[in-house]
Amino acid sequence: MKTYHGKQILITGGLGFIGSNLARALVGQGAHVTLVDSLIPQYGGNPFNIDGFADRLTVNVCDVRDPFAMAYLLQGKDYLFNLAGQTSHMDSMTDPKTDLDINANAQLSILEACRESNPGIKIVFASTRQLYGKPDYLPVDEKHPIRPVDVNGINKLAGEWYHLLYNNVYGIRACALRLTNTYGPGMRVKDARQTFLGIWVRLLIENQPIKVFGDGLQLRDFNYVDDCVEALLLAGASNEANGKVYNLGSSEVIGLKDLADMMVSLGHGGRFELVPFPPERKAIDIGDYYSDFSLISNELGWTPKVGLREGLQKTMAYYLAHHAHYWD
Amino acid sequence: MKTYHGKQILITGGLGFIGSNLARALVGQGAHVTLVDSLIPQYGGNPFNIDGFADRLTVNVCDVRDPFAMAYLLQGKDYLFNLAGQTSHMDSMTDPKTDLDINANAQLSILEACRESNPGIKIVFASTRQLYGKPDYLPVDEKHPIRPVDVNGINKLAGEWYHLLYNNVYGIRACALRLTNTYGPGMRVKDARQTFLGIWVRLLIENQPIKVFGDGLQLRDFNYVDDCVEALLLAGASNEANGKVYNLGSSEVIGLKDLADMMVSLGHGGRFELVPFPPERKAIDIGDYYSDFSLISNELGWTPKVGLREGLQKTMAYYLAHHAHYWD
Repeated sequence: MKTYHGKQILITGGLGFIGSNLARALVGQGAHVTLVDSLIPQYGGNPFNIDGFADRLTVNVCDVRDPFAMAYLLQGKDYLFNLAGQTSHMDSMTDPKTDLDINANAQLSILEACRESNPGIKIVFASTRQLYGKPDYLPVDEKHPIRPVDVNGINKLAGEWYHLLYNNVYGIRACALRLTNTYGPGMRVKDARQTFLGIWVRLLIENQPIKVFGDGLQLRDFNYVDDCVEALLLAGASNEANGKVYNLGSSEVIGLKDLADMMVSLGHGGRFELVPFPPERKAIDIGDYYSDFSLISNELGWTPKVGLREGLQKTMAYYLAHHAHYWD
Repeated sequence: MKTYHGKQILITGGLGFIGSNLARALVGQGAHVTLVDSLIPQYGGNPFNIDGFADRLTVNVCDVRDPFAMAYLLQGKDYLFNLAGQTSHMDSMTDPKTDLDINANAQLSILEACRESNPGIKIVFASTRQLYGKPDYLPVDEKHPIRPVDVNGINKLAGEWYHLLYNNVYGIRACALRLTNTYGPGMRVKDARQTFLGIWVRLLIENQPIKVFGDGLQLRDFNYVDDCVEALLLAGASNEANGKVYNLGSSEVIGLKDLADMMVSLGHGGRFELVPFPPERKAIDIGDYYSDFSLISNELGWTPKVGLREGLQKTMAYYLAHHAHYWD
């Protein structure tokens, strides 16, 4: 893509999982990339995620809740990939205010700063399939009712809609991608705070049993991070995307027990066990979920390219080599 | 209704339009009523709204954004009618942070306080039809997609969903009513900040022309405040309502030009004129809107009883007598 060559790009959550992979792709396309990350230890940022290309971009450590820093950093940028967020569903229930501040309040600050001093910017916002809640039907398309099951889902939705509203009312071009489970090198694997797949990888490498909740029959779809990055780039490059929401997803749908089985079968050892749902997890469980991603396929030409087994193999290989940078 | 006799009731926004009318009804049913109101001059609170029964309840002036005051006041209450809100759509666009703080952040504080020290409380939350945005179809039922057209709609929705979430996850009984245009004695008439009908009443009494935007053909439905109060009381009394959202509405649908005409025809003089939409209004205009309120009719037995002409007549009579308490 020539879209991003020579362009000024800001990525919030830029030292995080998806942000750092996106940064690598953009640097490779000749973009001038600035990463914003709070590096809050419990969140997804990790300086090692940009190891090998850190000298080709700018890192600015600050919190998206800092409106002055954000207003300054947004000046002169052509694109904002707005990926920073509080992503833990459990944390959003135990500390709802922090979730609100990051996922809604800070988003409003960012958009207000754009409105005031950089209305020509294009924004791609990373949203989540979590806000559909427990599906009425499968696969879930963008017309599915919104029904968040946790504080995180409510606040992410507010953040998403602020973006669409600023597109519609002020003409600040913005769109949102509702990400499904994304995995790959760079994800937080120290614990289950970002994605359960993270802790599964760690447990596998540590030869501890993976714990699958309930009967393990819950269906999910997964995107390898390179596919997710491709979708972000396509959405940023397309004016057809402005004001729209797109699901990401995969047609390779799998039960969690089968997923655990696949991970164990990759040849790096490990095992899994079925355990009863912890009550605080059960309360916000959504049962089966997988996406209909035909809208982004039809409009932006995106389809996921990396198969699940291949992606998991790459992921395991990465963490086998680099796990010292991800947990003690 | 015997439900509320002897019960401890808290009403946020209690000196406002709907809150004060609800308070009158509850005091009449023998409830122990405490009103919370910030009395921010630009908002809807007015001490005159409880003239004649102020000695039969408790007024506590504080802001719902004060989490300590709210946590204290919520203790020991049987019912919370949670009506406080920033209601101006224009203000939500010029000062989105304040709207977020009141309509989302403070709601989360209130619910957290209930979770911590009064999980047995029953909450009725006043939401708004504004969050449906520009209707896909009419009349708009509760299954209609949510599509807020302003910051207020997004934040009100977050506030509404926090309530439903705390009902679903923590068992704190809560429901929400999505109010349509409500009018009657006690509404803010000084300006158009609360409802356009307010300023229309003032203009009529001052013999100034009412300004109807655009062609005046936009359809709306209206509820007289007594009907709205009745719905709040029914929702509070019903456990079937818990976790649910209900539209209010009226089957007496009218165009805004015809409404202006009706108001002029009431016999108190005045006139109206069609004026072009101010651009900032046009940007968030939703075209025609009226509600399908069959869900609350079927489940809670609510139907509006006061006809539009009768309600407007009562409203005009009230402000003709008491306007000195509502504007200088």
